[in-house]
Amino acid sequence: MVCITCFCRNRGLPVLLAAAAAFFAATAHGDEGMWLFNNPPKTILKQRYGFVPPASWYEHLQRSSVRFNEGGSGSFVSSRGLVLTNHHIGVDSLQKLSTKEKNYVADGFYAKTEDDEVKCPDLELNVLMNIDDVTARVNAAVPPGADLAAAETARRAVMNTIEQEEAKKTGLRCDVITLFQGGQYQLYRYKRYTDVRLVFAPEDAVGNFGGDPDNFEYPRYDLDICMFRVYENGRPAKIEHFLQWAPQGAADGELVFVSGNPAKTDRLDTVAHLQYIRDASLPLKLNWLMCSEVLLSTYGQRSEENMRRCREDLFYIQNSRKAELGRLAGLQDPAVMADKQSAETALRAAVAADPRLRTTAASAWDDVAAAIKILRDIYKDVFLLEEGRAFRCRQFSIARTLLRMAQEDANPNAQRLREFRSSNRASLEQEVYSPAPIYDDLETIKLADGLSLFVTMAGADNELVRKVLAGKSPQERAAELIHGTRLDEVAVRRELARGGLAAVRASDDPMVKLALLVDGPSRKVRRTKEQQVDEPLRQAYAKIAQARFAVSGNEIYPDATFTLRLSFGVVKGYDAEGRHMPPWTTLGSAFEHAAEHHNQEPFNLPPSWLSRKGELDLATPLNFVATPDIIGGNSGSPVVNRQGQFVGIIFDGNLESLVWDFVYTEKTGRAISVHAAAIDQALRKIYGAARLADELGK
Amino acid sequence: MVCITCFCRNRGLPVLLAAAAAFFAATAHGDEGMWLFNNPPKTILKQRYGFVPPASWYEHLQRSSVRFNEGGSGSFVSSRGLVLTNHHIGVDSLQKLSTKEKNYVADGFYAKTEDDEVKCPDLELNVLMNIDDVTARVNAAVPPGADLAAAETARRAVMNTIEQEEAKKTGLRCDVITLFQGGQYQLYRYKRYTDVRLVFAPEDAVGNFGGDPDNFEYPRYDLDICMFRVYENGRPAKIEHFLQWAPQGAADGELVFVSGNPAKTDRLDTVAHLQYIRDASLPLKLNWLMCSEVLLSTYGQRSEENMRRCREDLFYIQNSRKAELGRLAGLQDPAVMADKQSAETALRAAVAADPRLRTTAASAWDDVAAAIKILRDIYKDVFLLEEGRAFRCRQFSIARTLLRMAQEDANPNAQRLREFRSSNRASLEQEVYSPAPIYDDLETIKLADGLSLFVTMAGADNELVRKVLAGKSPQERAAELIHGTRLDEVAVRRELARGGLAAVRASDDPMVKLALLVDGPSRKVRRTKEQQVDEPLRQAYAKIAQARFAVSGNEIYPDATFTLRLSFGVVKGYDAEGRHMPPWTTLGSAFEHAAEHHNQEPFNLPPSWLSRKGELDLATPLNFVATPDIIGGNSGSPVVNRQGQFVGIIFDGNLESLVWDFVYTEKTGRAISVHAAAIDQALRKIYGAARLADELGK
Repeated sequence: MVCITCFCRNRGLPVLLAAAAAFFAATAHGDEGMWLFNNPPKTILKQRYGFVPPASWYEHLQRSSVRFNEGGSGSFVSSRGLVLTNHHIGVDSLQKLSTKEKNYVADGFYAKTEDDEVKCPDLELNVLMNIDDVTARVNAAVPPGADLAAAETARRAVMNTIEQEEAKKTGLRCDVITLFQGGQYQLYRYKRYTDVRLVFAPEDAVGNFGGDPDNFEYPRYDLDICMFRVYENGRPAKIEHFLQWAPQGAADGELVFVSGNPAKTDRLDTVAHLQYIRDASLPLKLNWLMCSEVLLSTYGQRSEENMRRCREDLFYIQNSRKAELGRLAGLQDPAVMADKQSAETALRAAVAADPRLRTTAASAWDDVAAAIKILRDIYKDVFLLEEGRAFRCRQFSIARTLLRMAQEDANPNAQRLREFRSSNRASLEQEVYSPAPIYDDLETIKLADGLSLFVTMAGADNELVRKVLAGKSPQERAAELIHGTRLDEVAVRRELARGGLAAVRASDDPMVKLALLVDGPSRKVRRTKEQQVDEPLRQAYAKIAQARFAVSGNEIYPDATFTLRLSFGVVKGYDAEGRHMPPWTTLGSAFEHAAEHHNQEPFNLPPSWLSRKGELDLATPLNFVATPDIIGGNSGSPVVNRQGQFVGIIFDGNLESLVWDFVYTEKTGRAISVHAAAIDQALRKIYGAARLADELGK
Repeated sequence: MVCITCFCRNRGLPVLLAAAAAFFAATAHGDEGMWLFNNPPKTILKQRYGFVPPASWYEHLQRSSVRFNEGGSGSFVSSRGLVLTNHHIGVDSLQKLSTKEKNYVADGFYAKTEDDEVKCPDLELNVLMNIDDVTARVNAAVPPGADLAAAETARRAVMNTIEQEEAKKTGLRCDVITLFQGGQYQLYRYKRYTDVRLVFAPEDAVGNFGGDPDNFEYPRYDLDICMFRVYENGRPAKIEHFLQWAPQGAADGELVFVSGNPAKTDRLDTVAHLQYIRDASLPLKLNWLMCSEVLLSTYGQRSEENMRRCREDLFYIQNSRKAELGRLAGLQDPAVMADKQSAETALRAAVAADPRLRTTAASAWDDVAAAIKILRDIYKDVFLLEEGRAFRCRQFSIARTLLRMAQEDANPNAQRLREFRSSNRASLEQEVYSPAPIYDDLETIKLADGLSLFVTMAGADNELVRKVLAGKSPQERAAELIHGTRLDEVAVRRELARGGLAAVRASDDPMVKLALLVDGPSRKVRRTKEQQVDEPLRQAYAKIAQARFAVSGNEIYPDATFTLRLSFGVVKGYDAEGRHMPPWTTLGSAFEHAAEHHNQEPFNLPPSWLSRKGELDLATPLNFVATPDIIGGNSGSPVVNRQGQFVGIIFDGNLESLVWDFVYTEKTGRAISVHAAAIDQALRKIYGAARLADELGK
């Protein structure tokens, strides 16, 4: 699934690469591109498809698009704030709402009236209102000749300040986004919705039909949808920009657009940077994912209730594992790296041949390599300490956030760590005061595993390891910490926050004490990364970006940054593994797929489907494939036609698309969507939800 | 399950350690000890239990015991060669016999007559006939002052030669066993059985009831048994030494004995050696196991047939993972290492205080540390190349064995690699010419995973990696190799072996070519390990062993070496997690356990049990716990009473026993067995196998 955890996988790559002739890697070809809404691919759309929409077309689509801050996309589909996203995006809230008695994940949900809609504990939705380029102001704030530490501090200060000023001025959430790895800085202003209520979810069995085996596969048969409604002042919000509904859905060969929030791509990384990902960070992450998958699976298999508790965590881990395995396969393919190397060589040659570029940019690749060399020395510490894998449990995250909130509040806004800037405070509090349930048994095994990893990676004789374990085994220490902490209770968190730094320092909560113990070393490695890796990377990539603009012109797009992008392409089948993959599957073929697997989990259609099969038009398209350029984070993105009408919703890419993290190719790579017609049928005929079907597009 | 893959896990260790006062780690306490049959714990048995059996008692039990060479134990239970072992030991043969049409693992098997008994493709059973101490001859063959390479060569030569001479003389399989990590060498002579036929197996659902969640747990409810029969000249072998059957089985508080083949313990390792296991080899192995578990699980979940194909591999991996996690937990417990450190300090002090020992042994601990330091440099290469993880697939193992068989045959027996010594040839051929099925799809994903690991661990720019991949991605290269090789066919293997080294070198089989390509580097790292690690370790541990004998006397036992050992103890419940664990569970409680989990996999009793519940005496003991000292490899060991009668069969240890890899304690650690009474009931009332029940003990 292409939620934020999903990146890249490769199947039969060399064939794909033959079709991928991206010379400078940033020059779009075919339907490539995750385009900025303030720099859309006008020339390409005109030349390739004769499509020349007015500016209002872009603005309407932009403001109809919704970002799920936990890692996905969605869209407004009614004037009364109805939001459509994927089941696997909504599942985070479904899980948090569930109890032993009521399982929203397994059983699904339908609110028969608006009064039945259920408030989510901590869901925040964002709508991008407008964008300003602030590159000049950000760069001007960094004094010429400043050393890296000073440059990083100055850059962070100006970004925090811009956001604070703008948030105060507009009342919106304001983020300064770093694009082109440092080549541009843009101010994104978002409207925030925090009263978000669950309206509809199908059963997990059909939302995630085929489970892990079918994930990233095609043909596919998932009703991967979920509906929420945003409220303001206790009533459904009145929404100006929402998508019209195209009841016929997407047609074969039709030009379609995708508006969503791809999380991260690595297409513009230098070869040295990619080698670091291949050799160091990705293997470490994959090992961690695999170990986590085993940990959670064994916990879940002990009982139905255990499985309910860890289901979403496990899904997240499995989905990431499958995607990251694909990324690794791509980077381990000698042909991919050779391709990247020749593109880099060509761009460097172009730079060397231009006296002006040579002066500004020739050293940039070596600068990247030098920063990456430092990153290779510290990435394990970053992983363990600052990313918190060594102390993996909800209560530690909460303890650290409360500690740092208190510490950073003592500093002027400009000096604070990015996530504690005042303009981000409301979102942060939404998260840290979430009443979502915490299961001590699950958190204990996660923490014990984290501490054990800490011993293995940092060494049993490491001073911090010894202090953290306090003479106990990882298992015992984890049990003691989880048993002793009171941070499960939201009131305790609020009380601690109210008391400020003094209260945090005086707390005898063992998890708070742990957060205090590790904060120094953790901040130290973060500082090293920010000053000696991130800042020089930004400076070097800014130079490379300028060279790209000079060589390729301005109609190029930056790597994905979990911000709103526009992609385009056509609905189109493909040939793979000796057979033709059709542009869509149908409701009927879902039943066939289940029958082939004796309706055994995870190929078990739920009773609601089995019992209403006779009432369905089985020829209705269910899932379809198209060429728009997407990646993890795009899950839930609306697919619209030339008229801007909703024709489907992205929920996955096929295995062949996973290499798109590094290089886009449309020969066999495809985005996979749920078809609008299937949504209409399912709501009306399976779930008896005509109230919602009638509301769509109105 | 305590088959050969199982080692150690810890739960609540400090409590255990308080009870574990093993001063020099080799001095047995309580019911500790995996004793040699030629040096049984006579004094302890007499003092503790007033038990003084005649020499014939030991000999009868020894010769009634059977070793399963794939990694388990068993016993003769009739004069007609009936062998009783665990289902999870027999499953290797069940899997190899199974096809898409007939699934011996899931469905079980019962041969109604001897004619229906099914020959296993490659099963070899060994019975230990007698033992001689050859320490003096082995050590005398190493010239005084020889350097390590010369010492290793001389030692290997004398061991190969002794085995060859003795095999020729006796017609038996003869192995020189290294005990006390180099302190003693003993010649074990085994009778081999290679015509072994499947007689009975229950369904996997009850043989492995509770699956991975219940593995290493107690209370427990498994009918983990399987029966084979050894044949000679096409008829059931006539067996002189077989166990009488005690129909009442084991009683609470009764003294019992276990005779089996514990695979490996690390109780006598130095602290430096244990630190290496904790920091380097064990984390690497665990990561590999976790990744393999995910790999096989995802393959298996795609279809029932896939799961059938990988089921035994997956079980092996999961079982190892659970055991190795326990070992890591033990070594990561500061209390365990502190205990080991003080025992070592005490022994070193005793050595230092004795002028003779000081001269011979004082430097031994530093010598171990120096050898371990070299091992730390090469263990990853050993893991990838010589242990073959980089080329993980059945066909590569076969290719390498054929290549080395041809190479080593060109050398005199004394100079050959140990596994290619002439006395081992018959066992080796049993394995390499096994007609067990090979599934290309499964082998391809395993090989692709191995090659990917090779890239990650050795580096994409490593010369051997480049040569192995031949410009392709791990996935493509794996597919090409598996698709191209013909080693799936036994006839091709035999033809290649017949052609000798010339035929192997001239072969155009891609897997043979791969084996040739990697053989040089692989042998090189093996040679380094044998000469610079294994040999100095043997020499140093021999000195430490002599010091132990001097300090503790001769009634001590060596670490486990997958050779026959005698353990003893009593049937006894224990208190853990605030409740009393009873000495046994009953047939009735198995039904209750299934019901608690709604009879859902892996807690689903098979139809044969559910339909015959009414005919069973539900109070019959099913599984029982006792204190004998066991570890992985002991699976299938008979449990006998003072009269030497069969009262049960070992199949597991509880979680608390897993720390026994490093230190034995009987406070809560227990061996778990299937009770003789349950076996009788199940055979007669559930499986209608009175033929077998009547044969037991006769």
